[in-house]
Amino acid sequence: MTATIIDGKAFAATVREKVAAGVATLKADHGITPGLAVVLVGEDPASQVYVRNKGTQTIEVGMNSFEHKLPADVPEAELYALIDRLNADPAVHGILVQFPVPDHLSETDIVARIDPAKDVDGLHVVNAGLLASGQKAMVSCTPLGCLMLLRDQLGSLSGLNAVVVGRSNLVGKPLAQLLLRDSCTVTIAHSRTKDLPEVCRGADILIAAVGRPQMVKGDWVKPGAAVIDVGINRIDAPERGEGKTRLVGDVDFASASEVAGAITPVPGGVGPMTIACLLANTLTACCRANDLPEPDGLTA
Amino acid sequence: MTATIIDGKAFAATVREKVAAGVATLKADHGITPGLAVVLVGEDPASQVYVRNKGTQTIEVGMNSFEHKLPADVPEAELYALIDRLNADPAVHGILVQFPVPDHLSETDIVARIDPAKDVDGLHVVNAGLLASGQKAMVSCTPLGCLMLLRDQLGSLSGLNAVVVGRSNLVGKPLAQLLLRDSCTVTIAHSRTKDLPEVCRGADILIAAVGRPQMVKGDWVKPGAAVIDVGINRIDAPERGEGKTRLVGDVDFASASEVAGAITPVPGGVGPMTIACLLANTLTACCRANDLPEPDGLTA
Ligand SMILES: NC(=O)c1ccc[n+]([C@@H]2O[C@H](COP(=O)([O-])OP(=O)(O)OC[C@H]3O[C@@H](n4cnc5c(N)ncnc54)[C@H](OP(=O)(O)O)[C@@H]3O)[C@@H](O)[C@H]2O)c1
Ligand SMILES: NC(=O)c1ccc[n+]([C@@H]2O[C@H](COP(=O)([O-])OP(=O)(O)OC[C@H]3O[C@@H](n4cnc5c(N)ncnc54)[C@H](OP(=O)(O)O)[C@@H]3O)[C@@H](O)[C@H]2O)c1
Repeated sequence: MTATIIDGKAFAATVREKVAAGVATLKADHGITPGLAVVLVGEDPASQVYVRNKGTQTIEVGMNSFEHKLPADVPEAELYALIDRLNADPAVHGILVQFPVPDHLSETDIVARIDPAKDVDGLHVVNAGLLASGQKAMVSCTPLGCLMLLRDQLGSLSGLNAVVVGRSNLVGKPLAQLLLRDSCTVTIAHSRTKDLPEVCRGADILIAAVGRPQMVKGDWVKPGAAVIDVGINRIDAPERGEGKTRLVGDVDFASASEVAGAITPVPGGVGPMTIACLLANTLTACCRANDLPEPDGLTA
Repeated sequence: MTATIIDGKAFAATVREKVAAGVATLKADHGITPGLAVVLVGEDPASQVYVRNKGTQTIEVGMNSFEHKLPADVPEAELYALIDRLNADPAVHGILVQFPVPDHLSETDIVARIDPAKDVDGLHVVNAGLLASGQKAMVSCTPLGCLMLLRDQLGSLSGLNAVVVGRSNLVGKPLAQLLLRDSCTVTIAHSRTKDLPEVCRGADILIAAVGRPQMVKGDWVKPGAAVIDVGINRIDAPERGEGKTRLVGDVDFASASEVAGAITPVPGGVGPMTIACLLANTLTACCRANDLPEPDGLTA
């Protein structure tokens, strides 16, 4: 069998279109424009690129983008004062502080300061609790993106065996919650799991969120399974020339794509969904803040 | 093989002894007495018995017990005012509102009103979130009791395959989180799971938290597995006389105990652990509130 390649880039574009349509309706019918505030502390070049991309895409879907840049040595109290103002600002529906932050700041404390209803990254403990107890939450973007891809590919997930390899707070655990909510039988595996290949072979849905290049081999995959590769790893690529590198996932794409029914590539799979889901979350947060119905197909 | 019968009643007694020792130390060294406040709304006879038992056991371990009885038609605002006072009272370290409450009150809203640090039932969304993200939480009593029994029976749980049948907020989901935290490979099954017997047969640790009398049969159990039966179901027992009933678990004890390595009976297994863990949580909450080290072996 040769797997269907799940085109995350194309799907992310449809998500952004849906968000844009939702934004247009909000403006036309209610005079409301969703707003996303992004806070960048310091001048990390990679972070600057991310923040710029987020800003551009935010504008493209018709939302307001508010960028706040603070010096690397900003006092904690000043950052918190900014977060407090954004929490209180009715034009701001989503708040994202770009991580990593300089060492004198605590990511946990920053997240705790953000109003959970505006925590479009889904990192606040209250959002983890709402998700864990099956209530409406802000769901972290990468897991939400994986869920959307799976629903699009498979329709109902009810009764399928899902194996999530990785138990981070950012990806593995929230994704396991989402799959459980969609009535998969969910197994969470990690570095202490015994006979991981055998555990993986039981999966109708196999998620790799590990951070180990090409760890999951084709013979770990049940024939016909849907494989979602969250990993983003940079490895040496001497075949491309001296000193060259390339991106690979946690799945050995060459062998796995001969067995799987559907599989996400890296790059171009899960990656593009993350910002699209950030925009979706901002729209959702705006609708909830205004007691309006949530956008269709953009939430967990 | 004939399974070791896990004596939850005896183990709960050792937990209460540990709590009593912790309380004695707190009093002697710091002049602090942990206090548990229990709120009962209305006159449900079963709830009255539970509340009385809790009060008695609280006193027995040397804690203060504060019982608050409100009429069945108490206005919501009055109940909330009481909770607010208990939240603010430094002599109260744990607060428990006995459920069910009359229909004009919302259990979710009541739990949300309790200070998460005093939520010794572990039901608050913040505690669910802390648990889900691997931070210090108040953990709901029945799952904590199951974890204690398993650690006592098996030592380290790392790398074992755990299957939790049931995904309720009260038992299945928090227990899955606890087992994951102890590095089990965790599978969560439920009513939509396909081929549940086969899923169960993979378990080194099998938890039944379903509410279906004797559903889990002996041939669902892997030889040597540890089986924890959370279910409490009352069934007809005509063999005991006309109209008689008896309690059974979610596991068919007769057949499962011939295959398992260890198994909890019903009654006398998980049941007695619940109040013991409530006392343990109250001691833990008191230590945390006073910035003192947590009691050994009584937390997740
Ligand atoms: N596409 C995106 O937008 C996006 C977003 C976020 C992350 N990612 C990528 O996704 C990957 C995972 O990210 P993360 O934040 O979840 O990583 P993380 O916090 O490092 O967690 C990695 C998880 O993998 C487990 N693990 C490590 N080695 C293993 C092994 N040999 N076998 C089985 N499990 C193993 C770890 O188990 P223990 O808990 O036992 O240590 C841990 O639970 C990374 O490659 C990251 O770059 C991509
Ligand atoms: N020992 C104690 O102190 C204590 C404390 C609390 C509870 N309990 C007992 O534990 C049991 C479970 O309590 P709970 O509050 O968790 O119950 P619950 O909220 O009713 O949840 C039951 C769970 O079992 C699942 N389930 C139902 N039928 C099933 C089937 N045929 N196959 C597989 N899964 C099935 C349900 O799946 P879906 O989600 O798909 O519906 C649900 O997730 C009850 O007997 C209760 O009395 C004991």
